[in-house]
Amino acid sequence: MASESEAQRALQYEQTLMYGRYTQDLGTFAKDEAARLRLQEGDAAVPRRPSELLEYTQGRCAPCRVCALQCQRFLISKVGEDWVFLILLGLVMALVSWAMDFAIATCLQAQKWMYGGLDTNVLLQYMAWVTYPTVLITFSAGFTQILAPQAVGSGIPEMKTILRGVVLKEYLTFKTFVAKVIGLTCALGSGMPLGKEGPFVHIASMCATLLSRFLSLFGGFYENEARNIEMLAAACAVGVGCCFAAPIGGVLFSIEVTSTFFAVRNYWRGFFAATFSAFIFRVLAVWNKDEETITALFKTRFRLDFPFDLQELPAFAVIGIASGFGGALFVYLNRKIVQFMRRQKTINRFLMKKRLLFPALVTLIISTLTFPPGFGQFMAGQLTQKDTLVTLFDNQTWAKQGINDEFEYLGILEAWLHPRSNVFVTLVVFILMKFWMSALATTIPVPCGAFMPVFVIGAAFGRLVGESMAAWFPDGIHTDSNIYRIVPGGYAVVGAAALSGAVTHTVSTAVIVFELTGQISHILPVMIAVILANAVAQSLQPSLYDSIIRIKKLPYLPELGWGHHEKYNVQVEDIMVRDIRYVTLNCKYRDLQQVLHSTKMKNLPLVESAESMILLGSIERTQVGALLSSQLSPQRRVMTLRQKALSEDGHRLSDPSIRFQISTETSSGTPARPALRKPLKPALKRVPSSPADSPPAGSADHAGIALKSLFCANAATEPTEAQGTAYQKAKRVRISIVEEMILGDKMTPAEILEWEEQQLDQLVDFSSAKIDPAPFQLVEHTSLHKTHTIFSLLGLDHAFVTSIGRLVGMVSLKELRKAIEGSLTGKGVKVRPPLASFRDSTASTTEADTTALRQLWDRHQHHHMPREAGPGGDDDDNTPKGQ
Amino acid sequence: MASESEAQRALQYEQTLMYGRYTQDLGTFAKDEAARLRLQEGDAAVPRRPSELLEYTQGRCAPCRVCALQCQRFLISKVGEDWVFLILLGLVMALVSWAMDFAIATCLQAQKWMYGGLDTNVLLQYMAWVTYPTVLITFSAGFTQILAPQAVGSGIPEMKTILRGVVLKEYLTFKTFVAKVIGLTCALGSGMPLGKEGPFVHIASMCATLLSRFLSLFGGFYENEARNIEMLAAACAVGVGCCFAAPIGGVLFSIEVTSTFFAVRNYWRGFFAATFSAFIFRVLAVWNKDEETITALFKTRFRLDFPFDLQELPAFAVIGIASGFGGALFVYLNRKIVQFMRRQKTINRFLMKKRLLFPALVTLIISTLTFPPGFGQFMAGQLTQKDTLVTLFDNQTWAKQGINDEFEYLGILEAWLHPRSNVFVTLVVFILMKFWMSALATTIPVPCGAFMPVFVIGAAFGRLVGESMAAWFPDGIHTDSNIYRIVPGGYAVVGAAALSGAVTHTVSTAVIVFELTGQISHILPVMIAVILANAVAQSLQPSLYDSIIRIKKLPYLPELGWGHHEKYNVQVEDIMVRDIRYVTLNCKYRDLQQVLHSTKMKNLPLVESAESMILLGSIERTQVGALLSSQLSPQRRVMTLRQKALSEDGHRLSDPSIRFQISTETSSGTPARPALRKPLKPALKRVPSSPADSPPAGSADHAGIALKSLFCANAATEPTEAQGTAYQKAKRVRISIVEEMILGDKMTPAEILEWEEQQLDQLVDFSSAKIDPAPFQLVEHTSLHKTHTIFSLLGLDHAFVTSIGRLVGMVSLKELRKAIEGSLTGKGVKVRPPLASFRDSTASTTEADTTALRQLWDRHQHHHMPREAGPGGDDDDNTPKGQ
Repeated sequence: MASESEAQRALQYEQTLMYGRYTQDLGTFAKDEAARLRLQEGDAAVPRRPSELLEYTQGRCAPCRVCALQCQRFLISKVGEDWVFLILLGLVMALVSWAMDFAIATCLQAQKWMYGGLDTNVLLQYMAWVTYPTVLITFSAGFTQILAPQAVGSGIPEMKTILRGVVLKEYLTFKTFVAKVIGLTCALGSGMPLGKEGPFVHIASMCATLLSRFLSLFGGFYENEARNIEMLAAACAVGVGCCFAAPIGGVLFSIEVTSTFFAVRNYWRGFFAATFSAFIFRVLAVWNKDEETITALFKTRFRLDFPFDLQELPAFAVIGIASGFGGALFVYLNRKIVQFMRRQKTINRFLMKKRLLFPALVTLIISTLTFPPGFGQFMAGQLTQKDTLVTLFDNQTWAKQGINDEFEYLGILEAWLHPRSNVFVTLVVFILMKFWMSALATTIPVPCGAFMPVFVIGAAFGRLVGESMAAWFPDGIHTDSNIYRIVPGGYAVVGAAALSGAVTHTVSTAVIVFELTGQISHILPVMIAVILANAVAQSLQPSLYDSIIRIKKLPYLPELGWGHHEKYNVQVEDIMVRDIRYVTLNCKYRDLQQVLHSTKMKNLPLVESAESMILLGSIERTQVGALLSSQLSPQRRVMTLRQKALSEDGHRLSDPSIRFQISTETSSGTPARPALRKPLKPALKRVPSSPADSPPAGSADHAGIALKSLFCANAATEPTEAQGTAYQKAKRVRISIVEEMILGDKMTPAEILEWEEQQLDQLVDFSSAKIDPAPFQLVEHTSLHKTHTIFSLLGLDHAFVTSIGRLVGMVSLKELRKAIEGSLTGKGVKVRPPLASFRDSTASTTEADTTALRQLWDRHQHHHMPREAGPGGDDDDNTPKGQ
Repeated sequence: MASESEAQRALQYEQTLMYGRYTQDLGTFAKDEAARLRLQEGDAAVPRRPSELLEYTQGRCAPCRVCALQCQRFLISKVGEDWVFLILLGLVMALVSWAMDFAIATCLQAQKWMYGGLDTNVLLQYMAWVTYPTVLITFSAGFTQILAPQAVGSGIPEMKTILRGVVLKEYLTFKTFVAKVIGLTCALGSGMPLGKEGPFVHIASMCATLLSRFLSLFGGFYENEARNIEMLAAACAVGVGCCFAAPIGGVLFSIEVTSTFFAVRNYWRGFFAATFSAFIFRVLAVWNKDEETITALFKTRFRLDFPFDLQELPAFAVIGIASGFGGALFVYLNRKIVQFMRRQKTINRFLMKKRLLFPALVTLIISTLTFPPGFGQFMAGQLTQKDTLVTLFDNQTWAKQGINDEFEYLGILEAWLHPRSNVFVTLVVFILMKFWMSALATTIPVPCGAFMPVFVIGAAFGRLVGESMAAWFPDGIHTDSNIYRIVPGGYAVVGAAALSGAVTHTVSTAVIVFELTGQISHILPVMIAVILANAVAQSLQPSLYDSIIRIKKLPYLPELGWGHHEKYNVQVEDIMVRDIRYVTLNCKYRDLQQVLHSTKMKNLPLVESAESMILLGSIERTQVGALLSSQLSPQRRVMTLRQKALSEDGHRLSDPSIRFQISTETSSGTPARPALRKPLKPALKRVPSSPADSPPAGSADHAGIALKSLFCANAATEPTEAQGTAYQKAKRVRISIVEEMILGDKMTPAEILEWEEQQLDQLVDFSSAKIDPAPFQLVEHTSLHKTHTIFSLLGLDHAFVTSIGRLVGMVSLKELRKAIEGSLTGKGVKVRPPLASFRDSTASTTEADTTALRQLWDRHQHHHMPREAGPGGDDDDNTPKGQ
């Protein structure tokens, strides 16, 4: 039950369209309000104090005061500018990144020191080697679980969803920020094969949100939704940029993984902030005397005059293709592990009880296998991720061949040399072991990314190919007078870019490696390998982030595939739902009730009349629910009762007046409900919808619902101060509702039913409802391709299909998704038999879903009666939150 | 007159929306059809012949035949795939780029050889030095003028407009391709300060269009509009990519200069094609033995271990800021030169007569000034653009200071050393002279870009700063034990990126320099300088390409500025046009006529009735015109006459039957006109609209219009074979119309008028009109910011404003443009007095425009009568083509 409600909580999302609407749920709204009030009372007074005090002191230095005030006003006006915000964001993120790197390095140093200090006893050494990461990971998992479970995992899938316009709850709060930063530091400090770039995207986004909330105390420009989305996009770039000190690659990578359509006008924001952040990040390293000047993070020193031979290109292409298959396999493996853990109910139940057991167990296995005196000696187990990369990008050739015989393994390079085996074996073991370890480790519920582990595996694979090439052609391929030996380090760079590109489905990993290594001489091999890897991986599997989005059941829109010619032929009329429920302008409340019972659509079309079917706008389900519940509300009943009582008996005034007092108190005490009934104009600008307060099924069991919501509110764990305020408010409201209902419930249930039946027969008054007057419309002949473009451009989740003003159908994200995925499988599998099974898992479910859809559609065709879509229908995606 | 009609021709454009519509003008359509028919008859039969022949030969090798057929089918199916197209595009463009580079190098070599061979006589030398480029530029200008005037200039502004969804005529044809390639080769071969990257974007786009037209002979996938836009976006990337051998920079640069919103799913296309193209381009150089292996175009050899000191960063920042001002000045200067040339009527009239005089004159002046024994000795006049760059990026320090005294100027570096002056003077003279020369040279009507000249000037400026720094700190700034001298070449790289970034308003020039030089060690200085340069330049002037778009009066949407907070407060209701003309569902033809007379809007809203004002869709102006003209057409008149004649006199059958025959022949001979009257369903998919054939003002002067169009067709110069076919067809049609009208015009003018008045009183039959059933709708409260986003996302040129289904207003690109630019100036100028005058030119015109708009609006408010917007109104942007 606990896990289910948790999953549901994670699934609760809300769609904000780009135009005309803005919705926010009550919880966040109340909390924001509380926080704002609190800050206005407390902190905000502090910066104001000097000027205010000046007002009351003697007016001696009046010019000074004026000057100071003007300066202050100037500064405040500047605070509102984008670049100030971006500089602050870059600065904060650089500091966070640097501090985290420092903490992680210290943690790793501590482990090394412990391991080194205990070299007299292997058992003790083993205990230290294994216990240390286990403790750190367990702490990280526990800490995140307790403080903010949203901090688990990479964060890029969630950011992609948020940038699509979906509001994910609690994903950008201070609590999550703290949980993510501390959890990530511990997780990476353990030395597990985990990465930091995904979490950094998330951290930067949270940082931007918090910063803009903080700065909004000085100016009012930070409250705009569109602007916040722009800033979040820039923050994602900063996240990657300051993680790798790669501003350009950071911007491109963040665009590729989070956006489907990118506004070029936001481009400079990302570059500006990421550059500043990367600059500060590297300057901190210089000031800390780690570096002499600003250079790349993993600087390479390949020769410039002849970086590679033209004849080496086939080898690079092979790396690319192999990385493509490897990347797809990694995504597949990662998903299978997650699915396996979920499906095995016995394991699952056991692990659910002992939540921290799974992380501890995985860490134990992995650290046991990497124990240097044990199996770790065959896979360079004692090297940290950073050391591994430095050695893999090394300039020299490791394979002892020909003239290289005198080459000695020096320093950390020694880890790769095993006296009883050769470099090739070490590399192969390393690749194989790290592959499944990384896929497994990234499923641990701690804040972690998969980019860096994959990058290291790719580098090792590249190195393997490079060493093989060097062994095969000891004097290089070039037949001219000059001998240009093969540089295996260059192959490692190519491999790293290719494999990470394949896993994330991005091309910009190429730019990231150039910025990481500080050399761009291998640009063509890297580009060729990355593109080939992408081509292979994209045709086999979704990207790692899309895979996680699907696992987490976040709303998504699949990309159109490579060869999507048939998309031009599918039209909206082929995929649209024809039989949709609608609200007419002259309907009765009973019709509203029926519509609410018969469909689960989040947005209902409003048509002129059932005959003309001219689409006037769309109305949200919650709005319809609010209309219904306000019509059937106990307050109105009490009012009716009171009026009746007044007309019947003029003497009994005391009792109804008390009720009336209470009911007014209620409506003034509720911040959200009266707003729902405001007239159209302000409602369009910003209306907080309150799912918990407006039961969508507008039946008469208000007491039950009110009590239920009260219970839910009680079940919330550990309200913070801000939450507490909101909670107190909500509680007060609910109690008064209950009170009032008890007072008003002097009618018998039969009387109530009769009254309600009367009410339901009245015509609906839409004047108080919030209507979206311009829902997006498509034509029957719009192609699937164009529909996809429009949906992803505008972040839509549904569109109505009209034919010269008349409503003829509707397309939602779900239909579109099924049309795309259905046609992908309908098209048949390409000539890829050995790995065709990769698709089967998705294909089979998709087909089943399509069949279900068809059945549903047929059912809708035949039964026009309401109340047939019972509970547990497959409209889950459209389920309004709060149900 | 000639220039006016030419300007009009250039201005004729058409808007294609992303959804629901596809329009193509008759000329292109007829030509395409003709070309297709011809190819099907001729060329297409050739590849078919083998298999067809096999059918008739003896059936001995049946398996072979089956196999061959299958192979053929497989290949044809593969031809439809995107990647085949992209590879072909990359290959072709690489070959074109390489061949052009080769030709240009040969031209420059020839000039050098001539100049060198004549060193006995300075006068002869001068003659050779000056005549050679003059002849080349004059030839280039004349050739382009005759073959395709659309090939003049950069091409990026036009591509930006085309990618917005606007169809520019003749911009992507084979003729333009030939003109651009040959014109560009000659122009660059002359050694003038001109660039090739802008034209290359255009060439690649034309190449893609031609290639897709060619490949559409094999498969049907190349006829989709959305796909073509995707391919054009990729082609732009290829253009830059193969010009500089910079795939990543090419993709980013093309995105920045051509798109406002970029689809990440098209990203790989650009990377794939650009990488392939750059690869082939460099491989060709290796095969030609120019290079030993694939390396960067302008390879630098800066030291890797200590590329720059942290304390040098202020100098880099200074380069960035100065480049920002310089870039803005360049754009301003370029625009002023164009405007000056246009305004000076006497000069203009003279130059118009002798079109080739201006190019020749400019070339003469510039080549005289660069003559090496003359003034050229102070500005390294004998160096070609490529040599200049190579020397500027040189590793050594030129300023003879301290230990560098023994350094000798070697090879081409000598050009920078003048015995009687020093390097600084040479550099300053070079920068100053090249600055105005480049600004002037890029206004010559030849195919040319401004990127490369600006890049060189930037490099020289950077070098100047670098040499100054090196002279100031001879032993470097670093105070440690190691002496790290300042590398002036690094400053040159930074300066080149900064100035070209400032002129084009792009950040990706940073990536281009890394790819051009093959070194990324200066990433942070380059990024900082580029961002600062962009910040300064963007706040002063539009980018060079936007400036050209405005000069050429192409439709555009200005970007929202940096600090665009006030945009969030302006709403659609503040800027929309409230008093718009509309068409009602139950209107008469007379109403249509009145609407056409009273407005110049390209799209008219169709409402249910004047009372309800419920928006049903939109109808194009040309459609309304077609409805009217078909109602009043001579054919219908003839039919009426014939029917009357039949009823009056049963014996006179012969004469009308001839007329009838002719009229049916006409309607079957016209490919476009019947399509206009097709029912809605196919019309939505692809309807070629024929502006010349459907007179928008549906008055009775058909003979005049028909004769005028006949005259226009005769005035077309040099019809090619394909054109000839179309032309023959059109001529036949027109002649038959005239014939028929002569036959039918037995009615007296009074009778005709009476008949037309009758016709005008009939109710309109919309069944034959093409109605867009889902025009884009906005709400009154949509913010300006969101409106801008939606317009640029969807490439709209207008949107209707509705309030719960009711039409309340309209916003077009023009209103939006004025709202944005108006508020930009309304906001007041920032603290930038010395350069504030830069804005004035645009600001004053904008204010005047706004006033005009307000007047127009007021007029519309007061006079609701039609026919008041007479000829020459200021709705020029909305003028339908063909008027």
